Amino acid sequence: MINIVLHEPEMPANTGNIGRTCVAAGARLHLIEPLGFNINEKMLKRAGLDYWDKLDVTIYDNYEDFILKNPEAKIYMATTKAPQTYAEVHYEPNCYIMFGKESAGIPENILVDHQDTSIRIPMIGDIRSLNLSNSVAIVLYEALRQNNFDQMNLEGHLRNYEWR
Amino acid sequence: MINIVLHEPEMPANTGNIGRTCVAAGARLHLIEPLGFNINEKMLKRAGLDYWDKLDVTIYDNYEDFILKNPEAKIYMATTKAPQTYAEVHYEPNCYIMFGKESAGIPENILVDHQDTSIRIPMIGDIRSLNLSNSVAIVLYEALRQNNFDQMNLEGHLRNYEWR
Repeated sequence: MINIVLHEPEMPANTGNIGRTCVAAGARLHLIEPLGFNINEKMLKRAGLDYWDKLDVTIYDNYEDFILKNPEAKIYMATTKAPQTYAEVHYEPNCYIMFGKESAGIPENILVDHQDTSIRIPMIGDIRSLNLSNSVAIVLYEALRQNNFDQMNLEGHLRNYEWR
Repeated sequence: MINIVLHEPEMPANTGNIGRTCVAAGARLHLIEPLGFNINEKMLKRAGLDYWDKLDVTIYDNYEDFILKNPEAKIYMATTKAPQTYAEVHYEPNCYIMFGKESAGIPENILVDHQDTSIRIPMIGDIRSLNLSNSVAIVLYEALRQNNFDQMNLEGHLRNYEWR
């Protein structure tokens, strides 16, 4: 199962959308505090996140807590500063893909220890980067594609398809 | 240049996000009316869409108008009803990828004429489908990846990269 890690996400709508993508993809979500919002029933209801109870989500006090509890994790770091693109690496079926906060990305002091596994989504020129939830969707589905969408048990799924 | 086509999109936030993704990717956006919102200065300002003037966007009265003005278009149709996945087809550098409205997708009477080029994003089970802007990001970046991100002139871009 592929793992998505959000480091100190700020916008509840993005984390909500990413949770929805993780449910659709069968991916596990890891949230590293501080978060820019409270995850409680009222927030989830207001944001229409009625799929949240189907999400495999874990919350950590900080980055050190995350590393302590996932000591074997092979972590890819999504950053606009990486020379290699997200399409150039090979994603293991149980890998972790980490994204930084919307306003600043993953801090330099974390990136510096993960240069080999840092990845970048190609973008044009000087515009603002892609929305966070879109960035997660692009890299997560590339990791799934490389693994033939195995975790989604597509064969059983396909049997139900037909043209109406 | 790859083309994204939205057929009667309903939610301004999704179309806004998709516009942002198109600017980042160097893709052209086509919007087919009716839209669920007005595109005017006030709406764009409120939604923080300050990149909209960098977007190559065309608006059409209806599907027939779009076909009339793009008679040579090779169109891929994104739908939950397609047997083949978006990762199984080969995207030409000038192809079109069309997405339906959030609540209903592309109508059956259009899909029936495009069965060979209909594509599906794999998802698990019975949950609601992926958010529209995430779906566009996933398929658009697969099309770009297959074409080696050629339209983004990456070599010139990469020269500016360095670790700080």
